[in-house]
Amino acid sequence: MRGFVVIGHTASLDPGFSLDDLAGSAGRMDVLCRCVNAGLLLSHGVRTDARVWLVIQDELAIRFDGAALRNVGPAERVIGGLIRKALEAKANAIGAQWVESSPGICVSRRDLDTVLDAASGPIVQLHEDGDPLPSLPAEIADPVFVLSDHQDFTSAEDAVIAPEYRISVGPRRLHADHTMSIVHNYLDTAGYTQYDA
Amino acid sequence: MRGFVVIGHTASLDPGFSLDDLAGSAGRMDVLCRCVNAGLLLSHGVRTDARVWLVIQDELAIRFDGAALRNVGPAERVIGGLIRKALEAKANAIGAQWVESSPGICVSRRDLDTVLDAASGPIVQLHEDGDPLPSLPAEIADPVFVLSDHQDFTSAEDAVIAPEYRISVGPRRLHADHTMSIVHNYLDTAGYTQYDA
Repeated sequence: MRGFVVIGHTASLDPGFSLDDLAGSAGRMDVLCRCVNAGLLLSHGVRTDARVWLVIQDELAIRFDGAALRNVGPAERVIGGLIRKALEAKANAIGAQWVESSPGICVSRRDLDTVLDAASGPIVQLHEDGDPLPSLPAEIADPVFVLSDHQDFTSAEDAVIAPEYRISVGPRRLHADHTMSIVHNYLDTAGYTQYDA
Repeated sequence: MRGFVVIGHTASLDPGFSLDDLAGSAGRMDVLCRCVNAGLLLSHGVRTDARVWLVIQDELAIRFDGAALRNVGPAERVIGGLIRKALEAKANAIGAQWVESSPGICVSRRDLDTVLDAASGPIVQLHEDGDPLPSLPAEIADPVFVLSDHQDFTSAEDAVIAPEYRISVGPRRLHADHTMSIVHNYLDTAGYTQYDA
């Protein structure tokens, strides 16, 4: 299982955000939508061995479980609609309980620390100042990658994450979702010299 | 310079398409929007050494030149709006002339064959049945990568493309935009053992 935790610093906690303005008044919700896409979707399929957690404003977590997702398309507006349903469902979430808002999508009142505490495998921070990707063992079991949205990690977040590995995928500063595609591919291709799709 | 030619089989040629329905009535325009993003945008920056051509219904080409783009955000709706402006500007395009619709964005009545004829470097088809990515020389000069949208290449397109290389980035079938992020990263990191961002 591969996990990706994406920190949303500015995304809306209010389900009333507009699907017509994901990049504006919804607080760069478009960034998080693209991360859900990159983390979970294949061409005409879903990565059933992957999960994505969005941690919004260090208050709320939305978990997308590839093995249970149904009818999720890659378009920002589609994923934004699913996030809106999750934000609506948070009213039913008591304590740190997970509440399902759509198949494979759950919401909980959890901060970054609580989400990472539940990770079973090693924490890998994806950070522009990290070590090159090939220094990450490609056979790593159950890695949980942590990324930030369009803003840098805060020092408080760096302290909470306390990663086992700190990795940069390359010499250029990339968007979080592009980085996720590269990481998936690194693990997908490990050990392959020919592909047998 | 790196080029990416993306074939849009179903995207709208009519500038009247709705930005609220990019994945539906606009003919999977969302796919093309994400390809423009993956081909040209960095975190808080633009790849000034890259160009993307969208070839829509083998009738119309829209060219995005990273060196000249201004104020382009990664959100699908933002890029969809720029495509709409390009489709509006096609009324002013005589013959195969390029007409600028926004800074760095031009439109022309050209089919796939004409677009590829103008390529200065080797043609690289990105295809699930291709050879592994490491078989592509990382120091390749001015490659022009050709990808298809959510539909497979037609046999007519395969014949027109006649690639110098046919490359698959991995064992799983990926969306075109995810593939583009992986290809950029392959070329970005070639020869690096440490990154100096």
